[in-house]
Amino acid sequence: MLDALFRPRAVAVIGASNRRLTIGYRIVENLVDSGFKGPIFPINPKAPYIKNFIAYKDIMDVPLQVDLAHIIVKNTRVPGEIEKCGKKGIKVVIVNTAGFGEIGEEGVKLQEEMLAVAKKYGVRVFGPNCQGVMNSDPEIRAYCNFTFTSMIEGSISVMAQSGGVGEVINNRLYELGLGFRMYASYGNQADINATEILEYWGNDPGTKVIMLHIETLQNPAEFAKVAKEISKRKPVLAMKTGRTKLGAKAVSSHTGGMMAVDTTTNLLLEKCGILTFTDEEELCQAARALAQLPVAEGNRVGIITNTGGPGIIVTDELTERGCDLSEISEASRDSLQGNLYPEASLANPIDVLATANPEHYKLAA
Amino acid sequence: MLDALFRPRAVAVIGASNRRLTIGYRIVENLVDSGFKGPIFPINPKAPYIKNFIAYKDIMDVPLQVDLAHIIVKNTRVPGEIEKCGKKGIKVVIVNTAGFGEIGEEGVKLQEEMLAVAKKYGVRVFGPNCQGVMNSDPEIRAYCNFTFTSMIEGSISVMAQSGGVGEVINNRLYELGLGFRMYASYGNQADINATEILEYWGNDPGTKVIMLHIETLQNPAEFAKVAKEISKRKPVLAMKTGRTKLGAKAVSSHTGGMMAVDTTTNLLLEKCGILTFTDEEELCQAARALAQLPVAEGNRVGIITNTGGPGIIVTDELTERGCDLSEISEASRDSLQGNLYPEASLANPIDVLATANPEHYKLAA
Repeated sequence: MLDALFRPRAVAVIGASNRRLTIGYRIVENLVDSGFKGPIFPINPKAPYIKNFIAYKDIMDVPLQVDLAHIIVKNTRVPGEIEKCGKKGIKVVIVNTAGFGEIGEEGVKLQEEMLAVAKKYGVRVFGPNCQGVMNSDPEIRAYCNFTFTSMIEGSISVMAQSGGVGEVINNRLYELGLGFRMYASYGNQADINATEILEYWGNDPGTKVIMLHIETLQNPAEFAKVAKEISKRKPVLAMKTGRTKLGAKAVSSHTGGMMAVDTTTNLLLEKCGILTFTDEEELCQAARALAQLPVAEGNRVGIITNTGGPGIIVTDELTERGCDLSEISEASRDSLQGNLYPEASLANPIDVLATANPEHYKLAA
Repeated sequence: MLDALFRPRAVAVIGASNRRLTIGYRIVENLVDSGFKGPIFPINPKAPYIKNFIAYKDIMDVPLQVDLAHIIVKNTRVPGEIEKCGKKGIKVVIVNTAGFGEIGEEGVKLQEEMLAVAKKYGVRVFGPNCQGVMNSDPEIRAYCNFTFTSMIEGSISVMAQSGGVGEVINNRLYELGLGFRMYASYGNQADINATEILEYWGNDPGTKVIMLHIETLQNPAEFAKVAKEISKRKPVLAMKTGRTKLGAKAVSSHTGGMMAVDTTTNLLLEKCGILTFTDEEELCQAARALAQLPVAEGNRVGIITNTGGPGIIVTDELTERGCDLSEISEASRDSLQGNLYPEASLANPIDVLATANPEHYKLAA
C-alpha cells in the first residue's frame, strides 16, 4: 500500500522553484543528486524550466503516469492541487506545506477539507507540515526530502516525528558509515501515520533495524498492537523526547501534543519489546551494533582488550546493565598461556597487552 | 618542585632504541616531532646513534646538564641507573619499565630498593610502570611519553591512572580540536603521586580545567585536602572506573588496587567539589564546555534553536539535571515579535525556524 510513497516510479514536485535553498528546489536537487531511478516532473506555472528540467504549468500537463507528488504551494491552495492529483491518478502526495492542524482552528478546518478531497479521489496524504521520505534501495534511490545528509545505502530505517532530530540521526549514521534503508518524517500525520509506516518497514526485507523518534503517539493502542509483532521479527529502537515537564511543554508548542509530564510512553514502548533511549548517540551506536552483529542469545560476555583501563570501563558498563562476565575455563587458560605474552592477563577481560598482534586477538577470541 | 618533570630544559632517554614502535624509540621520536625546546640525549651502550642523535653509552657521558631522564632498561637494572642519574644531578626520572610493585613480592622489594637509591641522591621518581608526562606549553613542548596522539596546545590538563584510558581521552580531545595543557599517567606512583600533580596543576596558570581518570586513590585523605582547595579555583572533573564488583576485580588485576565494590570514591570526589562522570564522552564534552565558556553563575537557562525537536531534547536533559528554563519577558517577546519570522516560537526554547539567519540568532540571544 505504501509502495507508491517509498518506491515511486515517477515523482512530481508541485511548487518546484529555481531559488536555491527553497524546499521546492532542494527536493528536485536531492532527487537528482541521489540518483533517483525514475523521471522527475517539476511543476511551476511561471518558470519555463526548473534546474535541468522542463517545468509543467500544471500537474495535469505531465505526459506520463506519476506515483507520488510533493505539494509545496500555499496552504489554502493544497486541496485544489490534491484534487488535480486525484484526477491524474497519483496515489500519494507528500504535503510539505505547513499551516494546517498545527496552527489552530482555522488550520484544522483546512486539514479536514484537504483530507475530504483526498479521500474522494483515493489519494493518500503524507504530512502535512513535514519533511518527507527517503529510500536508499539501489533500485529506487528516492530522496523525497529537502534535508542535507547524503544518502548511503544501509539497513537501518529511521522514522522521526521531529525532522530536526531525524536530520541529527541521519548525519550521525552517515558519519558512522552506516547510512539508512528508509526514512520518514511525517509531520501532522493527518492520514498516513507512524503505525502504518512501522508495519511497512516490518515487512521490508531490506530493513534490519528500525529507529523511532517520538514526541507524542497518535493512537497508542493501534501502535502497540503493530509494534509488538514487529519487535519479534527485528530490533525496534525508540527515543521519546519531551519526558520532563518543560520538555512536554516544548513539545506542545512544537508538534501540538497535549500531554503533561509523560511517564507512560516509555513504559508502553518497553512493553511492546522496543528498546528505549534518552541519548541520540547511544541510540545510533545501539542501532549500529544491531545492524552489524547478530543479536546476542544470552547475557554472558567475554572481553578482549589490549589495555586494561578501557577493559574496566566496559566491565562496569556491561555488568551494570545485567551482563555477566564468564570465567575463562582452565582449558582455555592453558591454551592461551604459551601463546600470548607472559604478562598477558588471562582473566575476563583478557588483556593481550598493548603490543599484541592480530594473531593474539584471534587466539583470545 | 615538579618543574623538572613538566618543564624540563633537557631530556635523556636511558634505553633509547632504533627499533620502531619500541618505547625507547617512540619517546625520542615524540620529543622531536612535537618540537621539544631543549636538547635530547639518547643513551644506548651499543648503538652509535639513535634516530638523528649521537647516542651516549652512559648517562654520565652526557656533556650538558639534564633535568629529566626516562629509564626504559630491564627492571633489575633500574636502581643502578637511578644512582648514576643522581650523581649526574638529574632531578626527576620517569621509570617506564614495568616489573615492580604490580608483580608481587619480588617487585615490591625492587621498588623499595629503587626508592632508597633515589632518596639518597635526591632524585624524584615518576612511575614505575607508566607512560609518562606531556606539556604542550609552547615554551616547553615536552612529549615525554610513547603514545600516538599529536600534541595540540590546549587548556585542559589530563591525569589518567590508566594510560589506555588517557590515550582514549587525548584522542577525543584532539578530534574536538581542544588538545591538552599537560598530561600525566603515573603508573605505580611509587614517589610522585596524583595529589602532588593535582596541586601543581592547580597552580599552573595555563591549566583552566583538570580531568582525572581514577581506578584507586592512593591516599584519599591527603588527596581530598588538596582537591577541595583546587576545585574552588578551577573545575576538576573525574571519572572513577571499577565501580562495579567485576569492574573492581578487573582493577585489582590491572593496577593492583584491592578494593571490593567501590561506592565511596565517587562520594569523596563529589564532597571535594569534583564533578564525576561514568562516560568518557560526557567527560570530554563537559571539559570542552568548561574550557571554552565561563562557568554559569546560576541554573536559569535560555535555549535558542532553529528546529524544535532538538530543542526538546536539550530541555529534557537540562531540566532533569536541575536547570530551570526562564520565561521570556513580555518586553523581550515584543522586541522579537517583529524581527523574527512570524511563525517563530517565542517561548523558551526560542525556535527561530530552520531558515533563520545569523541576525535572527543574535536578536534571540
